[in-house]
Amino acid sequence: MTPFVYRCTDCGRTYSRDEVRYLCPTCGESYRPGIPLTGVLEAVFDYPAIHGRFQPGRPDWGLFCAVEDRYHPPLPVGNTPMARLDRTAAELGLGTLWVKNDGLNPSGSLKDRASFLVAAEAARLGIDLIVAASTGNAASALAAVCASTGQKALIFVPEKAPKAKLVQMVLYGATVVPVKGTYDDAFRLSLDYTAKRGGLNRNTAYHPLTLEGKKTAGLEIWAQAGFRVPDAIFVSVGDGVILGGVAKAFLDLNRAGLIDRLPRLIGVQADTSDAIHRYVETGVYSDAANPTTRADSISVTCPSNAHGARRAILESGGLTLTVTDEEILSAQATLASRSGIFTEPAGATAFAGLLKLQASSRALPADASAVILATGNGLKDVEAPLSRISIPPAVEPVLEALSL
Amino acid sequence: MTPFVYRCTDCGRTYSRDEVRYLCPTCGESYRPGIPLTGVLEAVFDYPAIHGRFQPGRPDWGLFCAVEDRYHPPLPVGNTPMARLDRTAAELGLGTLWVKNDGLNPSGSLKDRASFLVAAEAARLGIDLIVAASTGNAASALAAVCASTGQKALIFVPEKAPKAKLVQMVLYGATVVPVKGTYDDAFRLSLDYTAKRGGLNRNTAYHPLTLEGKKTAGLEIWAQAGFRVPDAIFVSVGDGVILGGVAKAFLDLNRAGLIDRLPRLIGVQADTSDAIHRYVETGVYSDAANPTTRADSISVTCPSNAHGARRAILESGGLTLTVTDEEILSAQATLASRSGIFTEPAGATAFAGLLKLQASSRALPADASAVILATGNGLKDVEAPLSRISIPPAVEPVLEALSL
Ligand SMILES: [Zn+2]
Ligand SMILES: [Zn+2]
Repeated sequence: MTPFVYRCTDCGRTYSRDEVRYLCPTCGESYRPGIPLTGVLEAVFDYPAIHGRFQPGRPDWGLFCAVEDRYHPPLPVGNTPMARLDRTAAELGLGTLWVKNDGLNPSGSLKDRASFLVAAEAARLGIDLIVAASTGNAASALAAVCASTGQKALIFVPEKAPKAKLVQMVLYGATVVPVKGTYDDAFRLSLDYTAKRGGLNRNTAYHPLTLEGKKTAGLEIWAQAGFRVPDAIFVSVGDGVILGGVAKAFLDLNRAGLIDRLPRLIGVQADTSDAIHRYVETGVYSDAANPTTRADSISVTCPSNAHGARRAILESGGLTLTVTDEEILSAQATLASRSGIFTEPAGATAFAGLLKLQASSRALPADASAVILATGNGLKDVEAPLSRISIPPAVEPVLEALSL
Repeated sequence: MTPFVYRCTDCGRTYSRDEVRYLCPTCGESYRPGIPLTGVLEAVFDYPAIHGRFQPGRPDWGLFCAVEDRYHPPLPVGNTPMARLDRTAAELGLGTLWVKNDGLNPSGSLKDRASFLVAAEAARLGIDLIVAASTGNAASALAAVCASTGQKALIFVPEKAPKAKLVQMVLYGATVVPVKGTYDDAFRLSLDYTAKRGGLNRNTAYHPLTLEGKKTAGLEIWAQAGFRVPDAIFVSVGDGVILGGVAKAFLDLNRAGLIDRLPRLIGVQADTSDAIHRYVETGVYSDAANPTTRADSISVTCPSNAHGARRAILESGGLTLTVTDEEILSAQATLASRSGIFTEPAGATAFAGLLKLQASSRALPADASAVILATGNGLKDVEAPLSRISIPPAVEPVLEALSL
C-alpha cells in the first residue's frame, strides 16, 4: 500500500480516506433519474514513492493498492492469463492481439477485483455487511469474496439476471434480493438501503475503491504485454467503471513515471445500451431509454461512471463504438473457435468492437498492438450462444453409424 | 523439456517416444468390457538432469515437460490459484487446508492440462485431428485447446452430459458426437475411430501424455504449498487419471531428489461409481455396474487408470472413500459458502471426502496439511445445486417492501 488521498473528479477537492466514504461531500450526487453520478472520487497516490520503489523485474503491485495487505480477503483474485492470438491478429491486420481472460477469476468475472478491495476496506473500517446492486456479476463477485472472509453480503439484482449468476450468489451464502425492474432500480434501492439501514455500499463508481480494484486488470495488462503500453485496449462498456479502472491503471503508471504514453481506450457498447457512446460522440448526456441487450452485464439505462468513462476515452485519444446483439453473439462464437476463450456476451462485445473497427475506415494500423478485455466467463450464460448453435443429435455407439 | 522414455507400468518394458503411441505394445490391452486398460505407459525422465538444473527459487517447470516448448498451444493453461482456508481448517481439526481451484482453467476444468500436452504432441507428430471420448470436461478442454491451435477436435460424449459442457465444445468449433450410452460406450467408440479412421487419440490414460499433462497440477500444488509436500491431497476419482497425474508429480519430484516423501493420496468416489475404491479395499477389480451419480465427471463403469490409481494410493500410504450424492451436493454448498470457490459436483466430491474422513476414526491429525483438488468449475452444471437451493422471489424496488 502507498499513501493516497481521494480527489473529486468533478470539483477537484481532496479528502483523506477517513473523511469520506462514497462521493464528494461537496458536489457529489448519488442518484437522480436521467443524471449519472457526480463527484466520483479518485485515489491519488504518492507517486514519487511508487516511482522510487517499483522495479519492473520484480513488480510489487502492492504499491498501487489502496488498502493494507492485512485486510485482504483470503480468496486469490486476478492474475488471470492473457493469451496472444497470432492467427487472428494477422487476419485482422494487426501487429499483435491479446485477450485478457478475466472470466478466470473465482466467481467468473473481473468484478471479483472490485469486490476484493471493497471487502478489504470494509474489514479496515470494521463493517461486517456489504451491500451491492448488480446486473449479476458484481453480486456474484461480492458473494464469493464475502464467503471467503465471513462478511455478510446483501445483494440487489434484476430478477431477469441469468440463472447461473443467481445460483452462484445464493450458493455462496449471500442474501439475494431479486428486484422487479432494471439494474438501475436495483442500484437506487441499494443506495436507499445503506443510507437508511446500514452496511458498506459496494456499488460501482459510487464506492471509489471499485475503480481501484478494477485497476489491477490494467496493471496486469501492462505487465503481460511485457511492461509495454499496448496501442489500444478494447473494453465493453455498461456503467463505464471497468473502462475507468483500466484507464486509472495507466494514469497511475504514467504519474509514477513508469510509462510515457496512454493506450487508446476503445469503449464498446451494445446498441440499445449506448448512453456513454452518445455522450462521447455528442458531449451531451442522456439515458439509454430501453437497454434490451442480451449482454446483460452491460445493460444499463444511466451509467454510474458516464463522466469518468468519457473523460478517460477522450484523454487517451480513444473512441467508442456500438454493436448489435447479433454482432456480439457472432463475435462470441468467433472468439471461442479461434482462441479457446469462451466469454459471456458482455465480454465478447469488446471483440465485436474490434471486428467492426478493423472493417471500417478507422481501422488500427498493421503494426498496432491491441488487447481485448474479456470481462466474464461464457459459462455464466450458456443460453445466449444456444440461440445461434445447436447440439447435434445423439448416435448409436458403433463406428458404422458414423459418417465422419 | 527433459529427455524421457516410456515405461510400461505393468511389464516394465521401456520404449522411445517415437516407438509407441498409446499402450505397451507387449502387454497393453485397450478395451475389454469389465477389464481396465493394461499396459498404460509412464514417462520416465532423465532425473539427474532435472536435479542438476531445477532451482526452487526460479522454478523451470519445462524440465518436467515431455513435449518441446515450440509445439505448445498458445492458450495459457494451469497456474491456477490455491486458496488457504484457515477458518475451515480450524473447524475440521487440521493445521492447514488449501483448495487448488482448477476450475479456473480456460475451459473450466483440470482437463485443459492434458489436452494442452496432447495437442502439443499431435503438433510434434504432424497429426491434425485429435479424437477423444469424455464425460464432458475432457472434451471441452480438447475443443478449447484445438480452437487455439487450429487443430481439429472430434469428440464423443454421453448424450446426457450437462448442457453447458455441450455448448462449450460446440462453440469452440469441435465436431461433437453425442453417444447414446455411457462414457464407457463413448470411450470404446473413440478407440475404434482412431484405430480404423485415423487421428491422435487423447483418451485419458490411453494416451500416456494425459497423465503427464495432469501432473502439472501436482507440481503447482508443491510450489504453492511453499515447495513443501502436503500431508494429504484429496482427489475425486472417476477414471483415476487425475489422481495418477498428481501422484506422478510427486514421484517425479522424488526421483529428481527434490522431495523426500510423498503426500498421502486420498481418492474419493461417488458411491455408485466406486470401482477403484473397491479395488483398493479388496485387491480384486470389478466394474461399477450402474454409475448414476450426479457428479457426471466421475461417473465411470470401468476406470481406465484403475491399476495406476490403486498403485499410487497404496504407494503413498493413502486410502479411498466413497460419498453419497447428498454428501457431494452438501459439500459443494459448504465449500462455496466458506471459501468463495464454486466447484462442480465432481470437484466437491474431494471436499466431501475430507468432511467424512475428519468425522471418522481415521481423521487426519491436528497438525496435518491437506489440499483439496477442485477439478472443475461449478458454472458447468448449475442445475446440480438447484436441487438443494432456491432463488428468492422478486420484490418491488422500494425500501419499504424489504424486511431485511
Ligand atoms: Zn466535488
Ligand atoms: Zn507392458
